[in-house]
Amino acid sequence: AFCCLNLLKKDTPMKLDQQTLLYEGKAKKIFSTNDVNRVLVEFKDDTTAYNAQKRESIQNKGLLNCQISARLFETLEDKGVPSHYLGLVSDSLMMVQHVKVIPIEVVLRNIATGSLCRETPIKEGKELTPPLLDLYFKDDLLGDPLLTRARLERLGIVSNQQISEIEILTRRVNDVMKAFLGNIDLLLVDFKLEFGFNQSGQLLVADEISPDTCRIWDQKKSDSNERILDKDRFRKNLGGLAKAYGQVLKRVDAVCPKPRKYK
Amino acid sequence: AFCCLNLLKKDTPMKLDQQTLLYEGKAKKIFSTNDVNRVLVEFKDDTTAYNAQKRESIQNKGLLNCQISARLFETLEDKGVPSHYLGLVSDSLMMVQHVKVIPIEVVLRNIATGSLCRETPIKEGKELTPPLLDLYFKDDLLGDPLLTRARLERLGIVSNQQISEIEILTRRVNDVMKAFLGNIDLLLVDFKLEFGFNQSGQLLVADEISPDTCRIWDQKKSDSNERILDKDRFRKNLGGLAKAYGQVLKRVDAVCPKPRKYK
Repeated sequence: AFCCLNLLKKDTPMKLDQQTLLYEGKAKKIFSTNDVNRVLVEFKDDTTAYNAQKRESIQNKGLLNCQISARLFETLEDKGVPSHYLGLVSDSLMMVQHVKVIPIEVVLRNIATGSLCRETPIKEGKELTPPLLDLYFKDDLLGDPLLTRARLERLGIVSNQQISEIEILTRRVNDVMKAFLGNIDLLLVDFKLEFGFNQSGQLLVADEISPDTCRIWDQKKSDSNERILDKDRFRKNLGGLAKAYGQVLKRVDAVCPKPRKYK
Repeated sequence: AFCCLNLLKKDTPMKLDQQTLLYEGKAKKIFSTNDVNRVLVEFKDDTTAYNAQKRESIQNKGLLNCQISARLFETLEDKGVPSHYLGLVSDSLMMVQHVKVIPIEVVLRNIATGSLCRETPIKEGKELTPPLLDLYFKDDLLGDPLLTRARLERLGIVSNQQISEIEILTRRVNDVMKAFLGNIDLLLVDFKLEFGFNQSGQLLVADEISPDTCRIWDQKKSDSNERILDKDRFRKNLGGLAKAYGQVLKRVDAVCPKPRKYK
């Protein structure tokens, strides 16, 4: 199941001028480089859920997410969706454009599950047509609260015009990803995106796109637990998270060329 | 402080044909009458907060809310805002039109406080211009969750057209109430409305309008606790709830005629 991983070797830390830790999040570390417009993202094995109330370190998780994310960013790039991704520096180290991150989590749902079903009477597994788009304020202390348009306007984080662009881009990401994953028998249930502006003010998909941030079901499996190939394995204590992420990488790797090396 | 209450006598239960309990909520009981289009609302002394996790019985609370609510509904009626209110049958018993209640709580905020400040970085006491309007799904089991427009559309409870009418009506209620209360040195901080459709399909303000459902501050007081004349006294364990509600009724009663008797 891990065939494609055999090609990847744990690498020694890169030597880059001015490489200092700028920020450490729950699942990633961000390092500066000698170019102010570029930063390095290190994908950690740390796994958290429910606003970090549940946490664990899962071997290879960082590497798997970095590899999957790189391939998905390249797939999006091929379809004209701009992201911060530049290339891989090593197996779990990604070079990206330095962006000013917008403190909003954009969640698009094709199928109802998770918090949506706890917060509304919408039934688990219900297909959402058109896909439901929710905006959350990215703030751990506040518990990443759901935002209405009116509350978002009041916070003044982004303009209405920018929110429209974010919505359009998110729906395009869904169209591309749903088709791409569907071809390898993976069902894209929902996903979370973050966005940022680069130095030129261009809106880019930022953060990562991985089984940590997407719900992905194996279309070859009918069992409601067995089919889960994403962080819900951790949330629901199902185990086998690295194996599931490895399964996603294996399928993605079969159709998507090895990610480009950042030079 | 309770001068106006001396006029009110505890009354014996009415004898009405077919008077059976249709529904008992946290703060009110609804009884049928011999007319299917009319129901009786009994205001209870039971006081609850935080989705009924905190509860207490406070003497006279039901009577005070019934009296205040009647006067506020009449004030709104004078300004052309339609409600389910028909008149008082006794001190804490109100005759209303039987409506099909829309399971949405509409909250309008003139000043930021309460859950808004726990859920967003908006600071306590911040004036909100224009007033912020939030919709919540009325469901105790789900904890009355905040609704986005997209979630509301998905739930299919009301049409977009109806939501627009509800928003317009809520803002009119605010304009009328803010001016009315301002004249008696009461600051309308925020309030919750419920709406329903009567037999003819007319949209009406339903439920109650009282210090249980409005935040009201005494403009003559500067102390942030002393000025509170609403259910926050209960939520924040400040005591003196009946005294505070009595103060609101006293001021409202001074400018608003005794509510009409339902015949």
